[in-house]
Amino acid sequence: MRPQDVIRRKRDGGELSREEIAFFVRGVVSDEWADYQSSALLMAIYLNGMSGAEQQSLTEEMLHSGEVLDFSELPQPVADKHSTGGVGDKTSLILAPLAAVCGVCVPMISGRGLGHTGGTLDKLEAIPGYRVNLSLAEFRTVLERVGFAMIGQTETIAPADKKLYALRDATETVEAIPLIVASIMSKKLAAGLDALVLDVKSGTGAFMHDETGAEELARALVATGNSFGVRTEALITDMNQPLGRAVGNAVEVSECIDLLRGEVDERARPVLDLSVELAARMVSLSGVEASLDVARGKVKRALESGAALDCFRRNVEAQGGDARVCDEPGRLRDLTLREVRVESERAGFVAAIDAAEIGRAVAVIGGGRARMSDSIDAGVGFLAEAKIGDEVKAGEALGLLLCRKTPDAEESAARIRSAYRIAEEQPRAPELIKEVITP
Amino acid sequence: MRPQDVIRRKRDGGELSREEIAFFVRGVVSDEWADYQSSALLMAIYLNGMSGAEQQSLTEEMLHSGEVLDFSELPQPVADKHSTGGVGDKTSLILAPLAAVCGVCVPMISGRGLGHTGGTLDKLEAIPGYRVNLSLAEFRTVLERVGFAMIGQTETIAPADKKLYALRDATETVEAIPLIVASIMSKKLAAGLDALVLDVKSGTGAFMHDETGAEELARALVATGNSFGVRTEALITDMNQPLGRAVGNAVEVSECIDLLRGEVDERARPVLDLSVELAARMVSLSGVEASLDVARGKVKRALESGAALDCFRRNVEAQGGDARVCDEPGRLRDLTLREVRVESERAGFVAAIDAAEIGRAVAVIGGGRARMSDSIDAGVGFLAEAKIGDEVKAGEALGLLLCRKTPDAEESAARIRSAYRIAEEQPRAPELIKEVITP
Repeated sequence: MRPQDVIRRKRDGGELSREEIAFFVRGVVSDEWADYQSSALLMAIYLNGMSGAEQQSLTEEMLHSGEVLDFSELPQPVADKHSTGGVGDKTSLILAPLAAVCGVCVPMISGRGLGHTGGTLDKLEAIPGYRVNLSLAEFRTVLERVGFAMIGQTETIAPADKKLYALRDATETVEAIPLIVASIMSKKLAAGLDALVLDVKSGTGAFMHDETGAEELARALVATGNSFGVRTEALITDMNQPLGRAVGNAVEVSECIDLLRGEVDERARPVLDLSVELAARMVSLSGVEASLDVARGKVKRALESGAALDCFRRNVEAQGGDARVCDEPGRLRDLTLREVRVESERAGFVAAIDAAEIGRAVAVIGGGRARMSDSIDAGVGFLAEAKIGDEVKAGEALGLLLCRKTPDAEESAARIRSAYRIAEEQPRAPELIKEVITP
Repeated sequence: MRPQDVIRRKRDGGELSREEIAFFVRGVVSDEWADYQSSALLMAIYLNGMSGAEQQSLTEEMLHSGEVLDFSELPQPVADKHSTGGVGDKTSLILAPLAAVCGVCVPMISGRGLGHTGGTLDKLEAIPGYRVNLSLAEFRTVLERVGFAMIGQTETIAPADKKLYALRDATETVEAIPLIVASIMSKKLAAGLDALVLDVKSGTGAFMHDETGAEELARALVATGNSFGVRTEALITDMNQPLGRAVGNAVEVSECIDLLRGEVDERARPVLDLSVELAARMVSLSGVEASLDVARGKVKRALESGAALDCFRRNVEAQGGDARVCDEPGRLRDLTLREVRVESERAGFVAAIDAAEIGRAVAVIGGGRARMSDSIDAGVGFLAEAKIGDEVKAGEALGLLLCRKTPDAEESAARIRSAYRIAEEQPRAPELIKEVITP
C-alpha cells in the first residue's frame, strides 16, 4: 500500500478501509507519510467527508497511536468535560472542583489558546507558580489527593493528533466534523474515562457558527464516545458573546474565584449556571447520582458550602501555585496595566457581539496567540460591561481593556467597538443552553 | 496575505484572484509556502476546479517564475509539439527533423519517462554519446546549425512547475485539467514559440481514458496557448494501444530511424502517419506554408528525399551521439539481451490492449521508472507483433520481450498477456486521429 493509493480513494469519494486508515495514522507518527501527503488527504477528507465507519476507525487508530491511561484502581468514577472552544469560556476551573467534591474523579487534560480562543492551561498559569506540566505520576497523585488535576497534552497521548492538528491548522482543514471528532475523542478516550460531558459551542465565537453544524458535531461526538463504552452527552451552548464578563487569562481566573467565593456579578452568572449544569451532568452520567436533579442539588451545595473553593485551593497548592489568590483574587491583578474604557459610539441596545473578534482583540494586546510558539501576557484582558440585550448610552462603556502599549490598545479597542452591534430595538438575550444531545 | 487565506478560499469553492495565485506560485519557489500547504491547495483545486481566469493566471505566474527564452533573432519561425504522454509515442524524433527541413525552428524541451509513459530524453540517450544536458548556449548553436535541438527541462525554466509536479505526483493531484494546462503551457510558453501543436492522447495508455476528458483538456490547452499569442492547435489521437510496434528506449529510436529511412513495418505505420500530420501542422501553423495540404506535401518530400534522415543525423552528431546508428540502426540492439516470445493463450482477434499495462510491463524489466531517481536500462523493450484487429492463433506471438533476468521477464510477460484482450469477433481498428481542436 502506498500513501497515494489512500489519497486517491478519498479524492474520488470512496470509503477508506480500516487498514488504509491504520496505514495513514501509523504513517503520520512514523513519518512514512510525508506531511504534504497527509495534508492532501486531510483536504480530501474535508471536501469529501467520511462515513461513520471511517470516523470510528480514525478515532480508534489515533487513540491507539499512543498511551491509554487507566484510573480504574481509583475508588471514584472518572469523568471529564470537553468544550469545543470559545471566548471567555472558563467553566473547567469551576466544574472540576464542583464535580470532585461530589465524588467524581476529574483527570483533565487541557489545551492552550490559539487564534481567538482561550485555553485552560494558559489561564491556570496566570496563577503564580502553577505547574501544568506534571509527570503522569504527579498527575495521579494530585488526582488521588484533590479529586481533580489539570495537565497539558503529553507527548505520549494520541501523538498522531498532535501532528495532524498542526497540519490542519496550517492547511485550513480544522473544521471538518470527522477530523474534529477523531481529534477530540482520541485524546479524551485516552484519559480512561467512564463518562464525558461535551460542551459544543455555537455562535459568533465558536467553530460552528450555526446550531445545525453544532448539532451535527455534537451527535457525532456523542455517538463516538458511547460506541467506545464511555457514557457521553453533549450540551449545545451559546457562544454568541463571551461567556461571562472576563476575557483574558488572569481576569478569567479571577472571575472563577469570585464565583466559587459566592461573589456573583450578574454578567458572570452564565459561567456559574453552565458550570453547575455541566458538573451535575458529570455527577449523574458517571453514576454517582442516578437523578440529574439530585446531582444538581448536590453540586449547588458543594458551591454554597465553600467546599468547591476549598477543593480548588487544594489543587492550586498541589500543583505548585500561590493559593493565596483563592482568598485574595486581587493578587491576580497586574497593577502596571492601563485601563482603557471602550465606549459605545451611539445609544441603543446591544443586539449582537462578534465574540471571535473580542477574542482577537485580546490576542492583539498579548492575551492570545497567532502561532503556537507565541508567548502570552497573562495579565491583559477585556472586561465586558455590556452584554446582549443591555441598553447603552452614547459614550457609555462597552467594557474595559486591561493593556500595555498604546498602538495595540487602539487597535484592540477599535476591534471591540466593531464587534458590538448596537440597535434601536432590544433583542432577546440568547438562551445559554440550546439543546441537550443524549445517545 | 497568508497561505491559509488562499487555501480557505479555494476549499470553499471560491475564485482565486491574480494576486492570490501570484502569492502561491512565488511562495512555492521561495518556500514561503510549506509543501504541505501547497499540496492542500492542489487537492482543493483538484476537487473544486478553477475558472478560465484562474487557469490563465496560474499559467502566467508559473511561466514567469523562471527564464523565458527568445529565438526571435532566428530567421525561421519557431514551433514545437507537445504530447500528453503515452506508450510507444516516439513522434518527436521524426517530426522534429521533418519540420526543421521544411523551415521551422524546433527548440524541443522534453521530459523523462515515469510510470507507464516513456520520455523523449530517455529515448535519445539510448544513442551512444547523445547529450541532452546542453547549456542554453549549446542548445541555441545546435538549433541554428541543424534546425532542431533537444534538451531536458532546465532549473531556470518554470521552476515552480518542477516543484509542483513532484508534489502532484506524490499526492494524486496530477490529473486536474487546470493543473495540467498550467504545467504544460508554462514550460512551452517559456520556450519562446510562435506556434504549438498539441497531441492529446486518449485511451487506455493515456492520462485521459475517454475522449470527453481529452477534448476538454485539448480545448483548455488550445485556448490558453492562443490567449498568450502562440498559435496553438491540438489533435486528439488514439492511445488505446502502443503507438507503432516498439516500446522501450533503444527499440523506439531504432523504429524511428527505420521510418526515416523509408523502411516501414505496417505495425509502425501509425507512427509515421502521425509524425507527418503533426509536422505538417507545425509547418502551416507557424506560417511557413499557408495551406495545410501544401505543408503535408512538403513534409512528405522531406521524408522521401532522405532530407529528414540527414537532418536527424546532423542533430545526433551535433549533440555528441554516434551518428552511425542512422545508417546501421542494428547498432542500437544490445546483443546480450534475451528474446522472450509472449504467446496468445487462445485464438481470436485482438479486441483491446491495455496500453498502460504494456508500459508497466516494460518498466518491470528496467525500461521505465517507478520513481524519478530510478535508472533506466536503454536496451530492453517490447516489440508488438499483434495490434488491435489482428487475428492470432493460440500459441502465436503477441510480441517479443527483449529482457535480462528471468523472474522480471516472467512478470512482464504475464502483464503483457493480461493486457491483450482476445475476442471472437474482429473489432474495427481504432482511428488514429480522433479530432482536431482549433481555436
